[in-house]
Amino acid sequence: MTIILVKEVAYLTQWLKDDERMDRLVRANLDIIQSPSVFSYSLDAVLLAHFANVPQGNRSQIVDLCAGNGAVGLLLSEKTKSKITGIELQPRLADMAERSIQLNQLSDQVRVIEGNLSEATKWIEKDSVDVVTCNPPYFSSPVTSKKNPNPHLAIARHEIHTNLNEVMSVTSGLLKMNGKAYFVHRPDRLIEILEAMKANRLAPKRMQLVYPKVNKEANILLIEGIKDGKETGFRVMPPLFVYGEDNEYLPEIRGILYGDKD
Amino acid sequence: MTIILVKEVAYLTQWLKDDERMDRLVRANLDIIQSPSVFSYSLDAVLLAHFANVPQGNRSQIVDLCAGNGAVGLLLSEKTKSKITGIELQPRLADMAERSIQLNQLSDQVRVIEGNLSEATKWIEKDSVDVVTCNPPYFSSPVTSKKNPNPHLAIARHEIHTNLNEVMSVTSGLLKMNGKAYFVHRPDRLIEILEAMKANRLAPKRMQLVYPKVNKEANILLIEGIKDGKETGFRVMPPLFVYGEDNEYLPEIRGILYGDKD
Repeated sequence: MTIILVKEVAYLTQWLKDDERMDRLVRANLDIIQSPSVFSYSLDAVLLAHFANVPQGNRSQIVDLCAGNGAVGLLLSEKTKSKITGIELQPRLADMAERSIQLNQLSDQVRVIEGNLSEATKWIEKDSVDVVTCNPPYFSSPVTSKKNPNPHLAIARHEIHTNLNEVMSVTSGLLKMNGKAYFVHRPDRLIEILEAMKANRLAPKRMQLVYPKVNKEANILLIEGIKDGKETGFRVMPPLFVYGEDNEYLPEIRGILYGDKD
Repeated sequence: MTIILVKEVAYLTQWLKDDERMDRLVRANLDIIQSPSVFSYSLDAVLLAHFANVPQGNRSQIVDLCAGNGAVGLLLSEKTKSKITGIELQPRLADMAERSIQLNQLSDQVRVIEGNLSEATKWIEKDSVDVVTCNPPYFSSPVTSKKNPNPHLAIARHEIHTNLNEVMSVTSGLLKMNGKAYFVHRPDRLIEILEAMKANRLAPKRMQLVYPKVNKEANILLIEGIKDGKETGFRVMPPLFVYGEDNEYLPEIRGILYGDKD
């Protein structure tokens, strides 16, 4: 994963622990605590928050599963006045998210719960949520596969403590009828993703593919599902390209990341 | 459907009936008989022939289902020395295909069978084919939907005489183990396509999405499946864009259509 937010804010170091650092997302005017040895959110999280349609008003319930350091929820707070709840399994990451929420003075709108998503209904009522977002672990983990030696990163990246079907099942359980689910994942798992959505009453509605460059294969997939939605009307949105030939972010990506309009 | 091949070849009119016309595909040096009131092949057929990987040698068996006026099979003859068999239900279209085969002096390599694909094993041995291509009817046809008033076009475009599952079932039945299937279809039917492939032992391997312009939703989907293939390793190939801002074909599409290298 690439760390994409670079403007470090040294004067806020009172909020930091160990090797953490602070990245400022210029567009959103957000400071987000990162740690290269524990968790750094990536372009994927930013694209997920950008792709998700959330109601602007304050009456909706939004949940972000596999919240990591809280980046998706923090980014979504720019698009809505509704309450946002992150659920994150790893105490170290949930703690980072909590401090970022406080630091940005978003505690009235955003919260993070340290816990296992399989127990989500301990904290959030079933069938009560309008929008669920999730940037889950990407890699399925047969016992023989070589895990990331860093346990924090391994859990964030590999299906060690959860898997696609559980993510979809929990998502569907939380959502109201016609509630919307947004996932970011790897295109090579598209088939499984669609099967797991179907198995959990999430009708795929929109998909967007992200290609690192114009002539490269897609490496990020964004998908929207609607709980108990119709099975027709699936759309493949215009593609996104990340880098130009000069290996710099393309204007559209800069716009998503930083709000640049050029 | 857009007619994309425009260089009419008037002196060959002896081959034509009624309102048929002849289009010359410059790249392939092929003359293909078209008829606007019966069937004109489209960019979709050209992209399918381009997307399909066929063995170059002469030892393989290639079958094109829903062959229409034979465009896909004729185009594939440029990529392989192997035998190509088209199957087309509509006598009028099969007749056009047969005349195009003769006209291009390809009768030793390419043939068209007039018949129902559900009876394909009457003419082609089960489990004997290396590559199947198919540009099937795109539109599912509930009884209430408004069919194309022209019956030839309606049959070519709507699932009146066949449907996705039958196409996949026949394809799978014809293919050898590890044989390859190539389909062109509409992205809005991706979910059904993947389900029908799985139900018929065709493991999706590669998908390419075609977008009319950079900022438009995809409107053509190309997909490759392998009979009894592994369920991992699915790839989303670099996207194709058809038109530039000036509404002219982009260079890559020109290259596919006409062999232009610029």
